Amino acid sequence: MSEEQNSAGKDADGLNERHNARMARKKEVVDKKIDAAKRNAGVLVITCGNGKGKSSSAFGMAARALGHGMKVGVVQFIKGAIATGEENFFRRFPDEISFHVMGEGYTWETQNRERDVEKAEIAWQRAKELLSDPAIGMVVLDELNIALKYKYLDVQRVIADLQARPTMQHVIVTGRGAPPELIAVANTVTEMQPVKHAFADGIAAQQGVEW
Amino acid sequence: MSEEQNSAGKDADGLNERHNARMARKKEVVDKKIDAAKRNAGVLVITCGNGKGKSSSAFGMAARALGHGMKVGVVQFIKGAIATGEENFFRRFPDEISFHVMGEGYTWETQNRERDVEKAEIAWQRAKELLSDPAIGMVVLDELNIALKYKYLDVQRVIADLQARPTMQHVIVTGRGAPPELIAVANTVTEMQPVKHAFADGIAAQQGVEW
Repeated sequence: MSEEQNSAGKDADGLNERHNARMARKKEVVDKKIDAAKRNAGVLVITCGNGKGKSSSAFGMAARALGHGMKVGVVQFIKGAIATGEENFFRRFPDEISFHVMGEGYTWETQNRERDVEKAEIAWQRAKELLSDPAIGMVVLDELNIALKYKYLDVQRVIADLQARPTMQHVIVTGRGAPPELIAVANTVTEMQPVKHAFADGIAAQQGVEW
Repeated sequence: MSEEQNSAGKDADGLNERHNARMARKKEVVDKKIDAAKRNAGVLVITCGNGKGKSSSAFGMAARALGHGMKVGVVQFIKGAIATGEENFFRRFPDEISFHVMGEGYTWETQNRERDVEKAEIAWQRAKELLSDPAIGMVVLDELNIALKYKYLDVQRVIADLQARPTMQHVIVTGRGAPPELIAVANTVTEMQPVKHAFADGIAAQQGVEW
């Protein structure tokens, strides 16, 4: 073996050793955090922000929950003008997931505030039924944040109903403009920040990706 | 009707009118953007950042794609030590989605860099098969970013293989630490920013929500 190869071999050994040592320290930190968080409870998760991934993340969690044998309920507050992939797909399993599409498209499509308020109220009644049923392990309230942002629904009333839900039930709330009062009572909140979007490349909303 | 009620009624009318006018302007802006973006193409989507929702967003898009009758392929690069809800669920549809779990848990669990590199290479071979198959409409490469971050795989080789894929195939890449070279060639990139997490409330990772 040449000296160069030998030195390269030593470098690789060094890289592996340093990596393994760093991972050992990381494992300690992660294990400690996991040890500290032991309580099981239904969580309120909010996905907000202007980036892509808010609703799709909620539907990914719905798929996870179904994979663990949990029952899931979905209310879509704003979407509904076009049939979406998530609706097509999850409607295949009516015994496991109840899927309610209550909106009539985005609010800038309807151009009618009074009708939007009425629709939001009907959607919330459906949500309340799901939030009262301990057999449902996860409730997805898709685009609820938008209904709150435009004050179609009163945020304090929504929070009261959310907090009265069964203790082990998870709720996922999605949409831009999550009100601070709701963020304050949530357990997990992620803001989806757009770094770039295919729109800018002149690419239309793609089936399977955006809807 | 008292003067007060009358004035409240006028206020409500004003609110509705202003809202409808604002929504009309918004519709114009949104419609223009949609008109400008007309091309159909397979997109490369990256979900990164430290917040919750990266993998779940990818699995939500997988559900959407299945709902449109597309075929989906999934390679999980890092996870795999425990059976996840997404794996349980999507394995129900072997004719529609091929699900490959290649990792052996997180890298700080394995504590062995050489084995991680070998596993990543095997996973990439599986990914390449999916990326060569025009019958597959969407490929999810879950936690690929972590394999790139730790240089288990060469980023330039990965980019070359991604760019050689069928033109209409969508790819979703997830994980913390997306390399800038990959972000540069992606169409849509979202950074999931943690605002708060249930861990801080002492709540353990919840079935259906985190796994």
